[in-house]
Amino acid sequence: MPKRLTATILVTLTTPDPASFATAGTPGLQVDLAGIPGERHYGMTAKADSRYPMYPRGTEIRNRRQLTAVSTEELAQVARDLGVPVVRPEWLGANLVLAGLPDLTRLEAGARLLFPSGAGLICEGENEPCRGPGEVIQAQYPQIPGLAAAFVKAAQHRRGIALSVERAGLIRPNDEVTITLL
Amino acid sequence: MPKRLTATILVTLTTPDPASFATAGTPGLQVDLAGIPGERHYGMTAKADSRYPMYPRGTEIRNRRQLTAVSTEELAQVARDLGVPVVRPEWLGANLVLAGLPDLTRLEAGARLLFPSGAGLICEGENEPCRGPGEVIQAQYPQIPGLAAAFVKAAQHRRGIALSVERAGLIRPNDEVTITLL
Repeated sequence: MPKRLTATILVTLTTPDPASFATAGTPGLQVDLAGIPGERHYGMTAKADSRYPMYPRGTEIRNRRQLTAVSTEELAQVARDLGVPVVRPEWLGANLVLAGLPDLTRLEAGARLLFPSGAGLICEGENEPCRGPGEVIQAQYPQIPGLAAAFVKAAQHRRGIALSVERAGLIRPNDEVTITLL
Repeated sequence: MPKRLTATILVTLTTPDPASFATAGTPGLQVDLAGIPGERHYGMTAKADSRYPMYPRGTEIRNRRQLTAVSTEELAQVARDLGVPVVRPEWLGANLVLAGLPDLTRLEAGARLLFPSGAGLICEGENEPCRGPGEVIQAQYPQIPGLAAAFVKAAQHRRGIALSVERAGLIRPNDEVTITLL
């Protein structure tokens, strides 16, 4: 019998501006097998970027980063470490904020997130922090220097996970998520 | 720096008969992002079956079982436990036989298998043994009763892994595979 965890969806977000990775809250996300239609990361395939040093840049690869999720508890820790009042999920380009799973980033690849609608997501592993979101945080707190670099350190193992869709469906705030481990 | 392992491809196999899961050796496999073109498990999506009790049977889901791999060392152990001279990968419907990674079945989901051609596969977790291959083995050794049921037990945690393709390319016998862990 595989181990089960539960968590709650606090917020769902998508990218309103395709030129930016920053997200904004939505009443729900209708996901299909390629991700969130119209979203910046949508697609069954994607181009290899700096996250994939094992492949030539620009090569077509399977898209395992269709969505990203963060934990509200981990974001609070990052904010505390940075000495700022809040780190908003919008600034990190997150699509889902979970509550009740404080160690979300440590969730094993292959873990399955199941939603009341029947939607299913697969954890594709930790989302490595990079400077982009740090620069967005810096822009929010111009009076505090060095936040962009500090973010990469503070967010290590706390920046959440990447996910791909296994089964289509609707994901909404207040959904209770069942998480099954391998 | 993620941990690295290496292994060697002993044999590559595909399904010559779409009505059967049994495989036969080939000089190589040209994989694309949906698997092995023309093979029984080919597709970006698949129908949920009994391996996916969390979804209604027949629902369209992402195909995370495009290929399966077994280890020659684990197959030898299964044969020893069953008291038969050999368990051939063809009888299990395997697409790849690896040598040099005795604990292949324990490989973590998310581990990446990289090939000299540039192809990349993702480990999608353990392949759970079922009676189908056991019945094929039984048919090979009709003088030994009870092999179908015994196989399920003997092959537990030794039946190899399911894989999906991350980057297209050619996979050939004698390829050295680099395996990177998360």
